[in-house]
Amino acid sequence: MHRIDKLTPFIVMDILAKAKEMEDVIHLEIGEPDLDPSPKVLQALEKAIKDRNYFYTPALGLPELREKVAEFYRVKYGVDLSPDRVVITTGTSGAFLVAYAVTMDAGDRIALGDPSYPCYKNFAHLLDIQPEFIPISKETEYEIKPDMLKGRDVKALHISSPSNPTGNLYSAQTLQELADYCDREGIYLISDEIYHGLVYEGKEHTALEFSDRAIVINGFSKFFCMPGFRIGWAILPSQLVRSAEIVIQNVFISAPTLSQYAAFEAFDWEYLNRVRETFAERRETLYEGVKELFEVDAKPQGAFYIWANVSRYTQDSYEFALKLLEEAHVAVTPGVDFGRNRTNEYIRLAYTRDTEELREAVRRLKDFLSSL
Amino acid sequence: MHRIDKLTPFIVMDILAKAKEMEDVIHLEIGEPDLDPSPKVLQALEKAIKDRNYFYTPALGLPELREKVAEFYRVKYGVDLSPDRVVITTGTSGAFLVAYAVTMDAGDRIALGDPSYPCYKNFAHLLDIQPEFIPISKETEYEIKPDMLKGRDVKALHISSPSNPTGNLYSAQTLQELADYCDREGIYLISDEIYHGLVYEGKEHTALEFSDRAIVINGFSKFFCMPGFRIGWAILPSQLVRSAEIVIQNVFISAPTLSQYAAFEAFDWEYLNRVRETFAERRETLYEGVKELFEVDAKPQGAFYIWANVSRYTQDSYEFALKLLEEAHVAVTPGVDFGRNRTNEYIRLAYTRDTEELREAVRRLKDFLSSL
Repeated sequence: MHRIDKLTPFIVMDILAKAKEMEDVIHLEIGEPDLDPSPKVLQALEKAIKDRNYFYTPALGLPELREKVAEFYRVKYGVDLSPDRVVITTGTSGAFLVAYAVTMDAGDRIALGDPSYPCYKNFAHLLDIQPEFIPISKETEYEIKPDMLKGRDVKALHISSPSNPTGNLYSAQTLQELADYCDREGIYLISDEIYHGLVYEGKEHTALEFSDRAIVINGFSKFFCMPGFRIGWAILPSQLVRSAEIVIQNVFISAPTLSQYAAFEAFDWEYLNRVRETFAERRETLYEGVKELFEVDAKPQGAFYIWANVSRYTQDSYEFALKLLEEAHVAVTPGVDFGRNRTNEYIRLAYTRDTEELREAVRRLKDFLSSL
Repeated sequence: MHRIDKLTPFIVMDILAKAKEMEDVIHLEIGEPDLDPSPKVLQALEKAIKDRNYFYTPALGLPELREKVAEFYRVKYGVDLSPDRVVITTGTSGAFLVAYAVTMDAGDRIALGDPSYPCYKNFAHLLDIQPEFIPISKETEYEIKPDMLKGRDVKALHISSPSNPTGNLYSAQTLQELADYCDREGIYLISDEIYHGLVYEGKEHTALEFSDRAIVINGFSKFFCMPGFRIGWAILPSQLVRSAEIVIQNVFISAPTLSQYAAFEAFDWEYLNRVRETFAERRETLYEGVKELFEVDAKPQGAFYIWANVSRYTQDSYEFALKLLEEAHVAVTPGVDFGRNRTNEYIRLAYTRDTEELREAVRRLKDFLSSL
């Protein structure tokens, strides 16, 4: 099978393309915040333009930004971190590529949750790494636990918390156990923490609280509301930083320069708290509406998604999503985008729209379902 | 051998790091223009910020930018091109990754010139593709010609014109012959045209003039003076566009949004002609100075590099470059960065500084050499 044939497209893009041809659609399919970044970010951007800061930067990123990211770990998690371990990347996407490239060879295996963010497996396929899917569900609290890894010959484990598509948060205990297990077994623990900050119940923990060897990936596209800036980071164990630098030199040269300067001011906590509150309110609105219509395994603790079981209406979530779009003008993502583990029974709804629109979406869903 | 161990770092970065610790260094090692982009680009950028254009774009890029790139081929080369074949990428770096990923599997072979841009082989290694180096030199006019490919089992041929590090231009005839050969043999012809526009003698031809099946890569980092914007493009045969879209969705999501909007106004020909003239003048200045000191196989026709043979002084261009930096405070790139074909006898000098600095560099070189 050719490399390219192993990569799967985002199915949601079919929905999106169809939705764009229609009028009056409520978009609950989109995994990007609709809010602006902090005004300070935009000011920093303007200043960077005036200062002519649009040439290449060092491959690992601007030293000042690496320091600010290290500071973020001190402030938010109490984790002391050398800026030398911070690698600035072209979005978290860039960070995944770097992390996979420096840790795995062709033929190696990586453990991924099913369901999980569809790109993980495609990064693996791009590099001829074999994804090994571990079913997660309500019964496992949507967590991968160490005993689920036993007997599996994997080089890395990739988790996300809060998770896309389910919005669940890994507990400190499971993170500790996973970190211990991976350290003992010589498995790289890759922790995608891009939805940190967007947590409404409980407290998010970085894998770095539990292991210095964890690879942590985060960025500015979600909580910091800077998706189009394409800027993220990875925290690597010291001995992998030089390898990451070589990959970035070759594959990216450096992350977009103006975006790096703009990100200097992204850690604007007053603004970020309002972002969090906005999404918290939206979560309530959509969850209260949706739980009456579908079965929701668990109220999401973070991110901005609800993973809803629609099996009382269908066994084909893709067809269901299409019908929902065509008849109710509500765009959602079919579960099949995220894996094969009963994903035909689920849809993902994103609360990346204002509460007014979310309420209207619930009304439309209700009308649509009562007409079935 | 591990994937990561096959990737080579930029040796020039050692020079650059050392140079940054020193004062009063003339930087002839840097492969990026020092000029600003057109003022219209900066205006478009400002407008994009005001218009809140910092969300994700379609994976293949903004339709309007794809159209402008297609228009560029009509205006500059008289090649009629559907915008559907234009794919906007995160720099030409992103375009290389996409082009390699959609055309080659692990184990496939790609023909590369030696010397050539060091990243080509590293993109190959990243994807477990085997580079097959074809020595090019004064004797081959620094071109790969079809008979040099005979008997080689390669899936793709990757050329660049004007070339980094030599500045030579492929003739229309060789391009035609290569395109014919590749089409006949079922080899993908990948043509890196990033230095197009920076041509001072002769005329550059796009591979698209000779074959619809050629993969052409270009971008805004050199001629258009937008290196830190990280924005480029690939022209693909129609049947590869969907594959490219899938790779971009997964690996990049989309190219930086503000950069895409800024690039709308990059085709400012009045400004670009001045850019070209500036580099043409610099070329004269550096070439006239350097040809008295070193053997230059050919006056470069394009790009902004001189590939100088220093074998009358050394057989170790790396050590020579270090000494040049330490004793003459002139930073250059050792030839060994670009391959193994007698690269120990060459250095690359970039004329990405103003003529005043270039003259001073020549004076320093002269003093240094006379002290040997």
